[in-house]
Amino acid sequence: MNSKQTETLDRRIAELQLDGYAQYAASSKDANLYYLTSFLAEDPFLFLRKGEQSVLVTSSMEKARALKSSGVDRVLALEDFLKDSFETEVDRATPNMIASVLRECDIKRLGVNADFPVSLADELRRNGYEIAPLSGSIEHSRSIKTVGELEHMAQVQRASEKALADAITILTHSKISGDVLRYKGRVLTSEQLKSAIGQSLINDACAPQDVIASSGEDSALPHLTGSGPVKADSTIVFDVFPQSTTSRYHADMSRTVLRGAPPPELFDMYSAVKEAQNIALKMLRPGISGAEVHLAVMDYFEERGFRTDVNNGQGFIHSTGHGLGLEVHELPFLNKRGGLLEKGNVVTIEPGLYYPNMGGVRLEDVAVITHNGNRNITQFPKEFVI
Amino acid sequence: MNSKQTETLDRRIAELQLDGYAQYAASSKDANLYYLTSFLAEDPFLFLRKGEQSVLVTSSMEKARALKSSGVDRVLALEDFLKDSFETEVDRATPNMIASVLRECDIKRLGVNADFPVSLADELRRNGYEIAPLSGSIEHSRSIKTVGELEHMAQVQRASEKALADAITILTHSKISGDVLRYKGRVLTSEQLKSAIGQSLINDACAPQDVIASSGEDSALPHLTGSGPVKADSTIVFDVFPQSTTSRYHADMSRTVLRGAPPPELFDMYSAVKEAQNIALKMLRPGISGAEVHLAVMDYFEERGFRTDVNNGQGFIHSTGHGLGLEVHELPFLNKRGGLLEKGNVVTIEPGLYYPNMGGVRLEDVAVITHNGNRNITQFPKEFVI
Repeated sequence: MNSKQTETLDRRIAELQLDGYAQYAASSKDANLYYLTSFLAEDPFLFLRKGEQSVLVTSSMEKARALKSSGVDRVLALEDFLKDSFETEVDRATPNMIASVLRECDIKRLGVNADFPVSLADELRRNGYEIAPLSGSIEHSRSIKTVGELEHMAQVQRASEKALADAITILTHSKISGDVLRYKGRVLTSEQLKSAIGQSLINDACAPQDVIASSGEDSALPHLTGSGPVKADSTIVFDVFPQSTTSRYHADMSRTVLRGAPPPELFDMYSAVKEAQNIALKMLRPGISGAEVHLAVMDYFEERGFRTDVNNGQGFIHSTGHGLGLEVHELPFLNKRGGLLEKGNVVTIEPGLYYPNMGGVRLEDVAVITHNGNRNITQFPKEFVI
Repeated sequence: MNSKQTETLDRRIAELQLDGYAQYAASSKDANLYYLTSFLAEDPFLFLRKGEQSVLVTSSMEKARALKSSGVDRVLALEDFLKDSFETEVDRATPNMIASVLRECDIKRLGVNADFPVSLADELRRNGYEIAPLSGSIEHSRSIKTVGELEHMAQVQRASEKALADAITILTHSKISGDVLRYKGRVLTSEQLKSAIGQSLINDACAPQDVIASSGEDSALPHLTGSGPVKADSTIVFDVFPQSTTSRYHADMSRTVLRGAPPPELFDMYSAVKEAQNIALKMLRPGISGAEVHLAVMDYFEERGFRTDVNNGQGFIHSTGHGLGLEVHELPFLNKRGGLLEKGNVVTIEPGLYYPNMGGVRLEDVAVITHNGNRNITQFPKEFVI
């Protein structure tokens, strides 16, 4: 089962002559585990790969639900393996349970995910098991999207665009009053904009995560979500990266807008960011490295007189982009260490400029790497002064 | 800083004569790390405790935001420690960075969280560091809630109750039509109920997580969220466990309702579940164990003729409850292995009965353990036939 999901992993297991592979985590917090099993659970469960079989060990209460998931061949009841250790020390219950399963499956040399808990690994090693952390195999499989995955992602992207349109409508219906905006007779706040976006997303079965709708000085800190009155004559940065509650895939999009009269510096920042994004978009194709793209964007900003040394806290202070999928940040990365892009990668392109006294500007689209270039899946307009 | 949060941890570090303690994770996915730092980030960062100082190492872009968080004394820029390994193997970048920080802080013997990634631990050990996984200290601190934490939790609880009231209103305004319900002229679906709950929650700055609104046979699988038409004459199980996007604390509540005429078996199940919950609520106080409470509930169900062997998939097939806080499931647990309850614990009491051909019944309240008993913080009525 799950041939695309386990292909690279199975090869690694064979290369290293391991007897199998295990993960123990809650799939709601572990994208690799969800990818391997298609089984979403808030509580940790054991996943085991041996030969061409995927086995899942979870509480018997979850058995029926787990069997419905497409990614596993067999589901075993956790209680059957907890028996021996039921009344013993709680800390030992999980490693003892895993050891019981490994015994039953005749596994001695076990591959595990790189972030397998050290306490479990130590205990299993004490019991004579060889534990080999593997990294990157599943992450790499995840970075090459199938047509089905791309459809899921386009769907979340459309939901994001609808949600952002709602927030923009509120802005265009707002009035400028001194240095803030007023909407329906009251001072408009970042909280209201975030709530409008959240409402629309939830309506489309997306979990909003942390929507960013920041203005003024707040917008100069890229990860601040924004609070208080929305400023006039100042940039308003939106960053929306929801997750579909059904497919679990993410969208990611940033736009910067302004109501009122922008100072010339902000115009200059906006045009530089927009052009930097175009430069990156023109470069994206299989075989180019994320590092090349990022360095080209840095060069362009430097040429236009913007700083790009991250420690300074001003100018272009983050990477150009990142892979997107079951996680908001995943392979491949468009930063100084970014590797070669491949067909099927989905990446954000999100140059930005930030100045504490001025505010921030960020534009972010998502592109799929095609066989000879890329396709921008973001359809939302880029209009600065609205 | 953070004396309550680090008290038990600091004592453990001293007892084991370690030089310090570290975690490396994304606090958005690691409740312990969020608890220690009050800094929410989607990307992994390094947390270090040495003596009475909490130090955080994160990208310079995040520095200003991290400094605003209440839980850390110092913030260092990740880039300063990545320098050496910038152009080397990507896999080594993180362990090398951590080693640089440990060198700078003069730490050789390091405590780590039980689920610290084994790949990082292995690499640090190869470099001569002693890595000691500690478990339970932070989880135990988290299980004793402060007055401030209880206020946060009451707030999310009120938001849950408001959201559930919206869904109940839809049900009471629905018409029975054959074996399904119709609302405003159309067949009412589980999806509509979940969406109504989600809308209300998001309005109150809560992330809805996976709302359950299941009916008919779906309701016999406790973790199925429900889909399709809402059935008449059949149980409708709601389970709402949102997380506040501001405080990060959870609420958790289940109610079972029915429109139409219930078969006598469902009445019997409902009254048994309600009485089982009362029995548990009367027992909750400091010094009693979660196991005692759970066994009393099991005994009661058995007495009334319901099965409680989990492997059977019918009857009472889950635990009586669990701690609640920054995570939906945390210490203490009301199950066969549940330890002693303490003042300040917050637990759910959620007995349930499930029969594949009949459906499910679950009632869930949340109680705080007080100095001599407990206080139920759930105010939502329990009405079966509505």
